[in-house]
Amino acid sequence: MLLEASAKGVYPIAPTPFEPDGRIDFNSIDRLTDFYVGCGSTGMTVLGVMGEAPKLDGLEALEVATRFIKRAPSLPVIVGVSAPGFAAMRSLAHAAMDAGAAGVMIAPPNTLRTDDQIVTYYRQAAEAIGADIPFVIQDYPLNFTVVMTPGVLRRIIADNPSCVMVKHEDWPGLEKISTLRKWEAEGSLRHVSILCGNGGLFLDFETERGADGAMTGYAFPDMLVDVVRHAEAGERDEAHDLFDAHLPLLRYEQQQGVGLAVRKHVMARRGLIASDAQRAPAGGLSVAAKAEIEYLLARLARHDKRAAVA
Amino acid sequence: MLLEASAKGVYPIAPTPFEPDGRIDFNSIDRLTDFYVGCGSTGMTVLGVMGEAPKLDGLEALEVATRFIKRAPSLPVIVGVSAPGFAAMRSLAHAAMDAGAAGVMIAPPNTLRTDDQIVTYYRQAAEAIGADIPFVIQDYPLNFTVVMTPGVLRRIIADNPSCVMVKHEDWPGLEKISTLRKWEAEGSLRHVSILCGNGGLFLDFETERGADGAMTGYAFPDMLVDVVRHAEAGERDEAHDLFDAHLPLLRYEQQQGVGLAVRKHVMARRGLIASDAQRAPAGGLSVAAKAEIEYLLARLARHDKRAAVA
Amino acid sequence: MLLEASAKGVYPIAPTPFEPDGRIDFNSIDRLTDFYVGCGSTGMTVLGVMGEAPKLDGLEALEVATRFIKRAPSLPVIVGVSAPGFAAMRSLAHAAMDAGAAGVMIAPPNTLRTDDQIVTYYRQAAEAIGADIPFVIQDYPLNFTVVMTPGVLRRIIADNPSCVMVKHEDWPGLEKISTLRKWEAEGSLRHVSILCGNGGLFLDFETERGADGAMTGYAFPDMLVDVVRHAEAGERDEAHDLFDAHLPLLRYEQQQGVGLAVRKHVMARRGLIASDAQRAPAGGLSVAAKAEIEYLLARLARHDKRAAVA
Amino acid sequence: MLLEASAKGVYPIAPTPFEPDGRIDFNSIDRLTDFYVGCGSTGMTVLGVMGEAPKLDGLEALEVATRFIKRAPSLPVIVGVSAPGFAAMRSLAHAAMDAGAAGVMIAPPNTLRTDDQIVTYYRQAAEAIGADIPFVIQDYPLNFTVVMTPGVLRRIIADNPSCVMVKHEDWPGLEKISTLRKWEAEGSLRHVSILCGNGGLFLDFETERGADGAMTGYAFPDMLVDVVRHAEAGERDEAHDLFDAHLPLLRYEQQQGVGLAVRKHVMARRGLIASDAQRAPAGGLSVAAKAEIEYLLARLARHDKRAAVA
Repeated sequence: MLLEASAKGVYPIAPTPFEPDGRIDFNSIDRLTDFYVGCGSTGMTVLGVMGEAPKLDGLEALEVATRFIKRAPSLPVIVGVSAPGFAAMRSLAHAAMDAGAAGVMIAPPNTLRTDDQIVTYYRQAAEAIGADIPFVIQDYPLNFTVVMTPGVLRRIIADNPSCVMVKHEDWPGLEKISTLRKWEAEGSLRHVSILCGNGGLFLDFETERGADGAMTGYAFPDMLVDVVRHAEAGERDEAHDLFDAHLPLLRYEQQQGVGLAVRKHVMARRGLIASDAQRAPAGGLSVAAKAEIEYLLARLARHDKRAAVA
Repeated sequence: MLLEASAKGVYPIAPTPFEPDGRIDFNSIDRLTDFYVGCGSTGMTVLGVMGEAPKLDGLEALEVATRFIKRAPSLPVIVGVSAPGFAAMRSLAHAAMDAGAAGVMIAPPNTLRTDDQIVTYYRQAAEAIGADIPFVIQDYPLNFTVVMTPGVLRRIIADNPSCVMVKHEDWPGLEKISTLRKWEAEGSLRHVSILCGNGGLFLDFETERGADGAMTGYAFPDMLVDVVRHAEAGERDEAHDLFDAHLPLLRYEQQQGVGLAVRKHVMARRGLIASDAQRAPAGGLSVAAKAEIEYLLARLARHDKRAAVA
Repeated sequence: MLLEASAKGVYPIAPTPFEPDGRIDFNSIDRLTDFYVGCGSTGMTVLGVMGEAPKLDGLEALEVATRFIKRAPSLPVIVGVSAPGFAAMRSLAHAAMDAGAAGVMIAPPNTLRTDDQIVTYYRQAAEAIGADIPFVIQDYPLNFTVVMTPGVLRRIIADNPSCVMVKHEDWPGLEKISTLRKWEAEGSLRHVSILCGNGGLFLDFETERGADGAMTGYAFPDMLVDVVRHAEAGERDEAHDLFDAHLPLLRYEQQQGVGLAVRKHVMARRGLIASDAQRAPAGGLSVAAKAEIEYLLARLARHDKRAAVA
Repeated sequence: MLLEASAKGVYPIAPTPFEPDGRIDFNSIDRLTDFYVGCGSTGMTVLGVMGEAPKLDGLEALEVATRFIKRAPSLPVIVGVSAPGFAAMRSLAHAAMDAGAAGVMIAPPNTLRTDDQIVTYYRQAAEAIGADIPFVIQDYPLNFTVVMTPGVLRRIIADNPSCVMVKHEDWPGLEKISTLRKWEAEGSLRHVSILCGNGGLFLDFETERGADGAMTGYAFPDMLVDVVRHAEAGERDEAHDLFDAHLPLLRYEQQQGVGLAVRKHVMARRGLIASDAQRAPAGGLSVAAKAEIEYLLARLARHDKRAAVA
């Protein structure tokens, strides 16, 4: 099962669950995977740079990816393979594909500046991993400081047949989606899947602009699935009603650095993982922050029963 | 009337209204000022770097500031005086104070990196403008790439008696407010006013953490006033209910670069200014974006009649 | 006298001389200008961003530029007009041209990232100042963090007939010069003048690659003139012999932040200006640094008598 | 043999030699190591981030480090272990020490900004690798954009007894060395070794300011050894005479990105390695650049016979 440019729906970015003592919590990987499958996810993404993938060493990373993949044989799994160099990227990409991954995701190093540097980097990365491995461009300027114009994305897609998806998390980014879809309609760009990240902060409108779904880690992936389904069914108000109810919490989770602690805390409160433990270096939650999350959950639960965790 | 460390409430960041042909629209300055006063603002801030102040030349900038100041004799007005060098900063600061400003706001140049560089910069800036002019620290890492720890803010406040306020727009920034207020409670930091920016994206919790109010440019400053008033009155649910109703639009306005176009568009739709014109270079709104704003306003109007602009 | 694309030779970047009490030292402007003219400079550049132009307020900046221009009626003078916004840039550009400047120099704001952003910025800047004012692109990534590929320079030159010169200070930058000259030879790029900055660190080879000369502020502009003359005359070894003798000092001057203090100190030791005073904020020289400079001058004087200042 | 704070002399940064087809050239590792030992190096550093270490996968990296270590049993070898996360850093550090390394070098990730962030990072890194592994701080703002004040270095050294060396490549950096040595003389900072990098561009004065030697990759490590020896013997003029003769070439090698190609090319011309091949992505040398290097070598050979490679 290889990732295809026709991919749609929700590929949750999976956090790496840990035991309080720092060991990998494989049971929670299973539980979380079952939840993703059960709520209607159409794929999964593991070892994202925003999660705790860099806190794993090479063997652990492969073990984690493999566990997710084995638990969800029906879902295509994308494995993050961003690395400081192409040799390590190739090694991890091949190992991931051997373990059953459907494709890989590549983020740009934050030293890239010019259009040509970005295009060249992706061409070299695609050559390094091999043309037979489908890959995803991660377009996240807020985190990587690498700014890709629509024209740069078009060049990368044109250069590399194995590029099948854009993880779109530019901000602002609505016009970028419209531009890519317009070029596709005009015939100057082949179709690739566009799944949206950036915490889901603009998912309500991104689907309307032509995105195929979401790839982000919000603690209610089931909400993401519902919003994308409503949008696809043309149920605009329903999509926005549900999205808006979650927006106060989703916005709260969207805090650089702190966000992962919020996310794991809510996931643990929901029972999706056993513990909100992070490996060092980890940003913890203050008493005040935890109380704010409880308040947000209680307010959300008035609209969405899934938030009733008390 | 000089700005004081006891300042509270809402100081809207005023945009600069233009005619469609690029001339300054002084009538809209009057109209906007009247609105700010009428809705309960406790001050105003003009010539912010995020607005179009850099598109004014020196004489125009002073004219704009003066017009706002004269129209609202009862309100303290803060004037942005950030400049590439201290000579220009001093000139503008003195001219603004002569025109009746209550204080000035200083953003850090985006070349500062170390704690000492930041502290030194503010000491030199305070010396340049003179110790008798109250000033505001603008702490906005997302835009300026200058990261100030709570300890750096404490050093700046301790060094400079004329520092009376922090425009807090760090993100995430809730713990920073708590830390500053804790230090104040312990006696290791004198009180300064903390007004929150970053589009108001976390205003609901910032007031609960100890902020004194808001200083941002959201197109519904009247909502900001109400939220701050509810918070001060201990009406927590009312504050959040109103804030949450606005959050989808507020979040939509919080798009770097595009945000000002959204803000002016909504303000023009509300009749607060005559036109949403910007001086070049300006990011316009697509047809799709304008339709999204209408949809957001219509949804908001179900909860807040002030959004019923159709 | 307007700046032309055929410009050659050396346009020294002039520092702004100050009295020890911070006042502008106009007499030293005259003395320095006479020296520039006397040693064979073919132009001058004033109010550069790397000098102390930002420490002048608007009126002072114009006074300084005018004094240089009036003192050297035979030389074309380029005035730096980089500014946070186009309104201030236009005002300064027009005032400078009215005072007799030959052209203006524009540096990119350090927020630009993509190729299109850079090209658009220069198009808007050229429109803002007007098509009748010749301008210079300042290409200095080390300082501005804006990276311009040869292709971006070609687009700017093609878009803007009033672009007549590139101040080339990319590092490394030798291949960039070769590429631009190759395109010119092929007919795909019109000729513009290329003068080299970055402290002159690669001037020996830049002239061989096709640069037309130097635009930098090294404390021995007379050496720059000689090196460019030797190069133009095909006296390769003589050019390198002289350059290499200066390289230890030139390299010492090429220290970000500290460099200006070194430069002014040596210029004052040579009698080109009365004092090495800088306006605050200024980096001073330690006793050790001053002794190192004396040692370097003494060593240099063995090869170049002009360095015998003791 | 563990790295100690009393380390002195020259620790060349070793490039990774490759065959033209991209395989690791182990014979050249041996030959290069023999040269380092033979010319008087007191240690070696391998797997630096500026070399091609990121182009090796994990197993290769360890093979390369081990080969260098085994070939020079008399020299302490420092292994670069910078990594995106602490798990990978710990794995590589332990493997390197098991293979016989004397210590490890850690560069800061380029996302660090505040003083506290930098200090915390090194504390966490030291904990991750374990207190028994001596480590080196790599202080290279030009490359990493992380600026460490002398005070930050003092905090890191005070916090971590296993910190024994600073690889100093700040620019400008002479005053930083003086400050650290002054603090040491005053008793407020324990002694650590300071070896200088940044291509050696200021080595002539760095040794006079109190540095203990060099750790850089210039293609004439034998010159570095001689300069440090002269400096230690108080032969100031001899040190500068030799250094100045090399400065034109050394400066030419000091071109970000291109520099490694120059370095390998000269090393191959000298016979220190068999080929100047780099793994992709690699910047090659143009015909013009190669001719410039020949010219520089020929000029240098008039003063230093070791450059007579023709």
